[in-house]
Amino acid sequence: MSDTAAEQHGHLEHDAEAVQAHLKRLRRIEGQVRGIQRMVEEEKYCIDILTQVSAVTKALQSLALVLLDDHMAHCLVDAARKGGAEQEEKLKEASEAIARLVRS
Amino acid sequence: MSDTAAEQHGHLEHDAEAVQAHLKRLRRIEGQVRGIQRMVEEEKYCIDILTQVSAVTKALQSLALVLLDDHMAHCLVDAARKGGAEQEEKLKEASEAIARLVRS
Amino acid sequence: MSDTAAEQHGHLEHDAEAVQAHLKRLRRIEGQVRGIQRMVEEEKYCIDILTQVSAVTKALQSLALVLLDDHMAHCLVDAARKGGAEQEEKLKEASEAIARLVRS
Amino acid sequence: MSDTAAEQHGHLEHDAEAVQAHLKRLRRIEGQVRGIQRMVEEEKYCIDILTQVSAVTKALQSLALVLLDDHMAHCLVDAARKGGAEQEEKLKEASEAIARLVRS
Repeated sequence: MSDTAAEQHGHLEHDAEAVQAHLKRLRRIEGQVRGIQRMVEEEKYCIDILTQVSAVTKALQSLALVLLDDHMAHCLVDAARKGGAEQEEKLKEASEAIARLVRS
Repeated sequence: MSDTAAEQHGHLEHDAEAVQAHLKRLRRIEGQVRGIQRMVEEEKYCIDILTQVSAVTKALQSLALVLLDDHMAHCLVDAARKGGAEQEEKLKEASEAIARLVRS
Repeated sequence: MSDTAAEQHGHLEHDAEAVQAHLKRLRRIEGQVRGIQRMVEEEKYCIDILTQVSAVTKALQSLALVLLDDHMAHCLVDAARKGGAEQEEKLKEASEAIARLVRS
Repeated sequence: MSDTAAEQHGHLEHDAEAVQAHLKRLRRIEGQVRGIQRMVEEEKYCIDILTQVSAVTKALQSLALVLLDDHMAHCLVDAARKGGAEQEEKLKEASEAIARLVRS
């Protein structure tokens, strides 16, 4: 979606609290990824490294579900009230985002 | 698995090339996570952020599968040749790691 | 969700064509499951059986995504237009259904 | 893998008990799929149908993990003891089967 269209709809709805919560999750995920780098550098046991990789994958999944909830509660609801082409576009985008999540 | 047991089995089999390849993937993943942080800070469109989160999840999945292949080709094969308790332990560990991956 | 509430919202929106398409997918999935039963009875090679299990999982995923799209385009949009408690309930339900799909 | 090669390695290792357990799971899955058909025919609420689809997906995942454990404990261990080309083939097959499971 082009930036201008995004700006009109107010993407993250400027919810400072939600933005901070997302950033906190992302910094933790970044720290976990660096932790895995250290495990690989120190040649830790592969199964222990795999356990951490699964943990980061789960953390990303939780972040994605929170972002999706945000999007549906704001952007999708707004578009549904407008109806027409904007509703169809938002439904299509949400559907494709959900499919990517389910298949990743 | 305790570190001492890990050291005996030679976790990543000291394959410097594989270690460097894993680190390269992990640094790219770290960069992608920081990229998502910037998108959230700049309040980019949520669907575009979700697309990046799915991309990082896929990158982690690929890393996990490579690590698992490494483990099976070295640790599991070694244990199978020894048979007995070590074989059973390695099969159990691999099975649990695969289940975590499938369910994450 | 209780049946009476479901009836009011018109669950599958009485779209006969969509219902028939879902049933066609489900009958094919049923046939695939019976095919796997035969493979197990005939003690076919486990990797070949696993390939079929993954195929059925993918078919179920596709069905789930179509059902979810249906639900969002009808029930969620209707609820968004009504707003209030019904909107919140539908958003919560959709969020939980998506989380189950992502985590299964 | 061609049937003849499969027969030599004794795929499901003729473990009658395991075969019966797999069949029992598969018949339950078949029953769940037929149950979903009835829900669609009776136009039950889509979220309730999605809940059942996720349940079947989980049941298939569990079956796949059991089949994979079986395969690793028998075919992969046998091949590891033989070493050489058969070991490489079995490792490759297992790796691809695990990737399909993780990505489905």
